Amino acid sequence: MNKYITELIGTLFLVMGAILGGAVGASLALMIMVYAGGHVSGAHYNPAVTLSVWMRGKIEMKEAVMYWVFQFVGALIAALIVMYVFSNEGSGECKVTEGWGTKAIIAELMGTFAWAYVVLNVATAKGTSGNSFYGIAIGGTVLAMATALGSFSGGAFNPAVAIGLAMQHSFCWDHVWVYFVGPLGGGALAAIVFSFINPDDK
Amino acid sequence: MNKYITELIGTLFLVMGAILGGAVGASLALMIMVYAGGHVSGAHYNPAVTLSVWMRGKIEMKEAVMYWVFQFVGALIAALIVMYVFSNEGSGECKVTEGWGTKAIIAELMGTFAWAYVVLNVATAKGTSGNSFYGIAIGGTVLAMATALGSFSGGAFNPAVAIGLAMQHSFCWDHVWVYFVGPLGGGALAAIVFSFINPDDK
Amino acid sequence: MNKYITELIGTLFLVMGAILGGAVGASLALMIMVYAGGHVSGAHYNPAVTLSVWMRGKIEMKEAVMYWVFQFVGALIAALIVMYVFSNEGSGECKVTEGWGTKAIIAELMGTFAWAYVVLNVATAKGTSGNSFYGIAIGGTVLAMATALGSFSGGAFNPAVAIGLAMQHSFCWDHVWVYFVGPLGGGALAAIVFSFINPDDK
Amino acid sequence: MNKYITELIGTLFLVMGAILGGAVGASLALMIMVYAGGHVSGAHYNPAVTLSVWMRGKIEMKEAVMYWVFQFVGALIAALIVMYVFSNEGSGECKVTEGWGTKAIIAELMGTFAWAYVVLNVATAKGTSGNSFYGIAIGGTVLAMATALGSFSGGAFNPAVAIGLAMQHSFCWDHVWVYFVGPLGGGALAAIVFSFINPDDK
Repeated sequence: MNKYITELIGTLFLVMGAILGGAVGASLALMIMVYAGGHVSGAHYNPAVTLSVWMRGKIEMKEAVMYWVFQFVGALIAALIVMYVFSNEGSGECKVTEGWGTKAIIAELMGTFAWAYVVLNVATAKGTSGNSFYGIAIGGTVLAMATALGSFSGGAFNPAVAIGLAMQHSFCWDHVWVYFVGPLGGGALAAIVFSFINPDDK
Repeated sequence: MNKYITELIGTLFLVMGAILGGAVGASLALMIMVYAGGHVSGAHYNPAVTLSVWMRGKIEMKEAVMYWVFQFVGALIAALIVMYVFSNEGSGECKVTEGWGTKAIIAELMGTFAWAYVVLNVATAKGTSGNSFYGIAIGGTVLAMATALGSFSGGAFNPAVAIGLAMQHSFCWDHVWVYFVGPLGGGALAAIVFSFINPDDK
Repeated sequence: MNKYITELIGTLFLVMGAILGGAVGASLALMIMVYAGGHVSGAHYNPAVTLSVWMRGKIEMKEAVMYWVFQFVGALIAALIVMYVFSNEGSGECKVTEGWGTKAIIAELMGTFAWAYVVLNVATAKGTSGNSFYGIAIGGTVLAMATALGSFSGGAFNPAVAIGLAMQHSFCWDHVWVYFVGPLGGGALAAIVFSFINPDDK
Repeated sequence: MNKYITELIGTLFLVMGAILGGAVGASLALMIMVYAGGHVSGAHYNPAVTLSVWMRGKIEMKEAVMYWVFQFVGALIAALIVMYVFSNEGSGECKVTEGWGTKAIIAELMGTFAWAYVVLNVATAKGTSGNSFYGIAIGGTVLAMATALGSFSGGAFNPAVAIGLAMQHSFCWDHVWVYFVGPLGGGALAAIVFSFINPDDK
């Protein structure tokens, strides 16, 4: 249970940081929560990362499902706090420009590929065990990807963040599927690439 | 005595950074002073963090009281230097908007919860001992929380910072209680949550 | 082959970060990819760094050539994704001001000297082995050099980045030679200086 | 000799970063050069820091004098490159406001106290030996102090930087003494305070 509460707290602050502090707020919140919770739960705070870690064989299916549940609950609590305590609510309108769908899915796939690729290499690989940089690397990935790709998709790279932002009406519900397809695809691809470049690390 | 002087110096630079450099100045000042003083005093620089560390059993009550005294003295010296050397003084007016009190208390509680939760996990937990990231994590927490929550409460997350800012008239005295109730509540909550997610770490 | 794929992925994200996220995007992308790939390939992502590491004797010529090939392929793929997925294309015009050539070559030489000097000292030297700061140091170098020197040359410090930006028409082809002469000269100089200041580190 | 060349290179990039990249450029240049050169020379790049390290007993007087010489030479070379290669030159006028002198000296003293206090604690103390954070802590100190105090004195915190900026006419020669009195005083004070808070660390 302590792992699940850690995932809930980390995802809550990540989503609150994303809504109230934008890309910088989200990246910093992720970094600090990775450092605070990594030794307890592994500090995924992202269902796509949990998928990737499960494919890499470092978490069991049963536990992964519980991680997903608590990540989404953390995102929902963040959305409720932002709306009802801090009176901050989006318009919920779908902003679509020409070719939005393709750009958004590929941006989310690439950004989440980077997120999961970094997590697998800095937090689960033999070659980097015992390092002190994993939080900076993971938080820095979200800031890097939001800086480069955020304008194409909104830069969630995380289905739980997308659900939180849709609840709070910063994202529109009709687009939420994009943030499942792109990130889960990116997370799965990262697990495959990780196995290829780390052949001796089972 | 060397621990107390370390707390005084760190809090002095934190408060000076907050007044003259805003959220970025405060976060950077905290980070560097955590790295400079952590090996001497644990580098709290915040009465709410000291409360949290005392509840977690890593500092004795008698010493905690001395930490508080020197943290407040450091904040006062910072306020005096800013006012009388650098001629920087606030208006001292209370700026209140609708629902300010509730938002401010919850913002301070959540921000200080994060600060103390990060300190307990990165600077007192068995699972992260010997790491090099504690200063970045703690300084990053203040920047993350100030980015996300600063607009609701002013973003002190620290009773000593609040006293320093009230002395220098950036905060108004009538509101200072908010920065005791919120931060001390957040620090206490962090100690309870820490015990729950680290059951084997006494 | 796993090393080459790692170089390709890292250079791809570096070039994509440079085009879509500017100096901050490029620096962050470099930092995260250095942390993700350092334990596999050494994380050069720059033909001039590979030259420097080869001169220092930490990579064989045959492997260095393969690194170069995959770095350029990564840059090309990034340019194609940016152009054809994200519809972002430069004008391809050569912007030349008085004395541009001399300033640009020296800026590129000094910036790449710093990049390679930092890599050799933080990622290949005995005196810093086992550190956790190499990604911050290397990513920070590109941000430092782009901040100080970017206005004189565009701030590539990397022939593969220059080829990617020329493909995508942010740089003009007539100037690409500048980004070979300056960076390769800077990388070679760094290897010589490294040997001088680390006489016992063969 | 390798130590002196390392000091020259580091100070050269620090001064170039300060002139061409402001507080952020200087701080980043310092961070990367501390990481690149720390294992060779200790990476002072500042005569006031060298004074402080000498008082703490970690460098001999004869060597300290050589450090000073090479730090000033590095600063001069940086000024010449900036002026004659990059055509960047200040007006050399003395900008003085009411009470400038007192504010500037105290700002320089406090900023350099922080710089040397951090260096002594993170790069020479037993309690932090083997850490990976020293470059972030030292570079972060310059950014923190420039953010908080830069507006009062120009934020050199370093006599060599002041000489470089005076050469290049960003600072005026009549004020250069301020950047010797303040920083050398701050460095000396840091050595005294360090001894007090680390009584067992000779």
